[in-house]
Amino acid sequence: MHIHQQFYEDYQLGVSRLSLGRTITESDIVLHAGQTGDFFPHHMDAEWCKSQPFKQRIAHGTLIFSVAIGQTATQINPEAFSKGYDRLRFIKPVFIGDTIHTKVTITEASLDKKPGYGKIVEHVEVFNQDDNLVMVCDHILLAKLKNTDPNL
Amino acid sequence: MHIHQQFYEDYQLGVSRLSLGRTITESDIVLHAGQTGDFFPHHMDAEWCKSQPFKQRIAHGTLIFSVAIGQTATQINPEAFSKGYDRLRFIKPVFIGDTIHTKVTITEASLDKKPGYGKIVEHVEVFNQDDNLVMVCDHILLAKLKNTDPNL
Amino acid sequence: MHIHQQFYEDYQLGVSRLSLGRTITESDIVLHAGQTGDFFPHHMDAEWCKSQPFKQRIAHGTLIFSVAIGQTATQINPEAFSKGYDRLRFIKPVFIGDTIHTKVTITEASLDKKPGYGKIVEHVEVFNQDDNLVMVCDHILLAKLKNTDPNL
Amino acid sequence: MHIHQQFYEDYQLGVSRLSLGRTITESDIVLHAGQTGDFFPHHMDAEWCKSQPFKQRIAHGTLIFSVAIGQTATQINPEAFSKGYDRLRFIKPVFIGDTIHTKVTITEASLDKKPGYGKIVEHVEVFNQDDNLVMVCDHILLAKLKNTDPNL
Amino acid sequence: MHIHQQFYEDYQLGVSRLSLGRTITESDIVLHAGQTGDFFPHHMDAEWCKSQPFKQRIAHGTLIFSVAIGQTATQINPEAFSKGYDRLRFIKPVFIGDTIHTKVTITEASLDKKPGYGKIVEHVEVFNQDDNLVMVCDHILLAKLKNTDPNL
Amino acid sequence: MHIHQQFYEDYQLGVSRLSLGRTITESDIVLHAGQTGDFFPHHMDAEWCKSQPFKQRIAHGTLIFSVAIGQTATQINPEAFSKGYDRLRFIKPVFIGDTIHTKVTITEASLDKKPGYGKIVEHVEVFNQDDNLVMVCDHILLAKLKNTDPNL
Repeated sequence: MHIHQQFYEDYQLGVSRLSLGRTITESDIVLHAGQTGDFFPHHMDAEWCKSQPFKQRIAHGTLIFSVAIGQTATQINPEAFSKGYDRLRFIKPVFIGDTIHTKVTITEASLDKKPGYGKIVEHVEVFNQDDNLVMVCDHILLAKLKNTDPNL
Repeated sequence: MHIHQQFYEDYQLGVSRLSLGRTITESDIVLHAGQTGDFFPHHMDAEWCKSQPFKQRIAHGTLIFSVAIGQTATQINPEAFSKGYDRLRFIKPVFIGDTIHTKVTITEASLDKKPGYGKIVEHVEVFNQDDNLVMVCDHILLAKLKNTDPNL
Repeated sequence: MHIHQQFYEDYQLGVSRLSLGRTITESDIVLHAGQTGDFFPHHMDAEWCKSQPFKQRIAHGTLIFSVAIGQTATQINPEAFSKGYDRLRFIKPVFIGDTIHTKVTITEASLDKKPGYGKIVEHVEVFNQDDNLVMVCDHILLAKLKNTDPNL
Repeated sequence: MHIHQQFYEDYQLGVSRLSLGRTITESDIVLHAGQTGDFFPHHMDAEWCKSQPFKQRIAHGTLIFSVAIGQTATQINPEAFSKGYDRLRFIKPVFIGDTIHTKVTITEASLDKKPGYGKIVEHVEVFNQDDNLVMVCDHILLAKLKNTDPNL
Repeated sequence: MHIHQQFYEDYQLGVSRLSLGRTITESDIVLHAGQTGDFFPHHMDAEWCKSQPFKQRIAHGTLIFSVAIGQTATQINPEAFSKGYDRLRFIKPVFIGDTIHTKVTITEASLDKKPGYGKIVEHVEVFNQDDNLVMVCDHILLAKLKNTDPNL
Repeated sequence: MHIHQQFYEDYQLGVSRLSLGRTITESDIVLHAGQTGDFFPHHMDAEWCKSQPFKQRIAHGTLIFSVAIGQTATQINPEAFSKGYDRLRFIKPVFIGDTIHTKVTITEASLDKKPGYGKIVEHVEVFNQDDNLVMVCDHILLAKLKNTDPNL
């Protein structure tokens, strides 16, 4: 985790970065239930899960999203801020013991309606240990323009 | 938390439900950093925050999203499953000591391309103690059709 | 979790409600030791436990009690408050991986010495995945009388 | 925490021991909500609590019970086991920042119906920093008899 | 945990004490990563670990040190304070499921340059369930002298 | 956190790196007590601390050490491993609300008795928000030699 200054013009379409991996543990699920208050049996009741199609407990969607976004939080860019996320989709369940890693690719860059800012879209993909895609979303950043001279 | 069976046809546009409130504490932020590995100074360094526009630590976006979705997790519908989220936006920062509650409104219902299913959109709004909107997103559910007779 | 107003007169003897299930995990025991400071080897030392009659780590009694009472905390009744518990008994050990659910039955209702209040006893039973009873207690509530006219 | 062998005959009526103190923090409440799933606004919603008689969040009863029993867990007696608790009463609320300590007094000792065992009652009292009693209960232990010769 | 007054003169060379055991769980590692921000794959990525010499996740060195020192924290001596640690060495990895206990031996006692104090060295050894030494360090205490008469 | 290959010859004496800051919270202390079992009143009893020279709760030494070492864990060097720590000293107490950051300086580099390895000493200094030194230690690494040809 370190500071890395990047203006709108510094982002390059198609560039991607890969996180390290992390195993999703039973502890992560228990702690996430505790943080969110979501004690749904899908996550917390191993007996009931045996009767379901997946046969075992699955991680909360918000857990996978939170861990994945955390995995991408490696550099602090003082020239940009997060606006939100689009098209967040849970594609495959993540089970206890699965190991996920996250790939971020710059897929869009355009001037924003907010003066002096450009909009950057980072496409986020989360893969499990079998390289199956388990989650995707688009992270929307607003980054300052380097040159904001209105006469240019 | 209880089981409540709802088919596609049972969702009514415009109906909304309101969660109870929850105060976002310093502990929540510390635990969320620990769960996600996101120790950015915006959340963890009270000294540095004094030099920033907001003057104080702010909650992680993924924390507010996770808690808000958790607040809406009150009934288990065996006839529906979550597909993901659209248009997640962080509108105002949430500070330590703020109390949030969540409002969910059914805003869309349409047949889905997946046969036998309808798509439901729940618009999620998170408010703080001053009734300021701090976060929004659209939750996308696929719910089974009650009547799936192809001749109807 | 929602608000449900119930006066003394609204409680009905013999009515019971059943919680969802929850698997007691190693994480729960580690977190409970951390919360209470009880690091007794019965809960924390798998090696030593092998030499004991139960052969494995067992959950703290206070953990099972806390989780079970939490499982019953589904509706907030503004007309009642908890006075305490009687006859709390640990009948069978709960092991890592066991799944418990809780049944609450209204077993007593009588006027209380506190004017305007009635005493309600909820009998709490905790079962494991084999439907063996592992814990019982009686929860004592004081609920407001609907009609407190002294002339009646 | 250490091993201290005590038979039924070794317990002395009227003997008491005092725990060290512990401050109940906002973290303890957040962690206990997370462990039990009890996110009632009495514990978690500082705004709502302002409208209530106590004006502030209060600790869960099960938290105070768990911490107090943990405070008494200082010696492991291989000759006794816990049967349960009687007359658990919550006398005063415990607020964030209160410091509690626990006093245990041997108040009863009698032969038990279980052959070779005596029943010991430890009266547990929990006090806050103003020496107000906030919780009481009776802990019931079964301790082995030293002399189990049936001819005596 | 209790108060036990010990002056410099009360420490005896060669005397040792042994802690109870504690199993290091996956939860402990997850919680320690969360507390320290150290999410190195050695501790958190079970897949990557399979490609490493140890084949499995290993506990953080700071976790083993913290737990071991915690295991020795059984008596509070108001006449001494901790100055620090020397020669902390990690000798063998600790894996999930290993059970450690700690042995403390008084190995040095000498007058300190701080007037009125003596320096005590406690040699700390941590063993796993196979009695293999996994960690050592020397704890340095300064303890008050009983007799501080400058004429003696 | 990323992988950065460094051989013995790549370490340069006098080079230092600085971590970001982190505020030590009450939650951190509560979680560390829970992880280690060290519930000494110095850390957990705000009332008792009022009677002590520091007047308030202080962070565990092992907490500050663990957080500080975590702050330095930013790059994974597959060519080196940690041997341990020397001269760990707690110089000033860290209180709830203090913000610490860590400075690491390469202070020694010498060939090791382990063939093919050099010994690197990283001097670790922890500062609070007033730039007071609160903790120091020496981290000892063994790093592979780039050129291990015995004829050179």
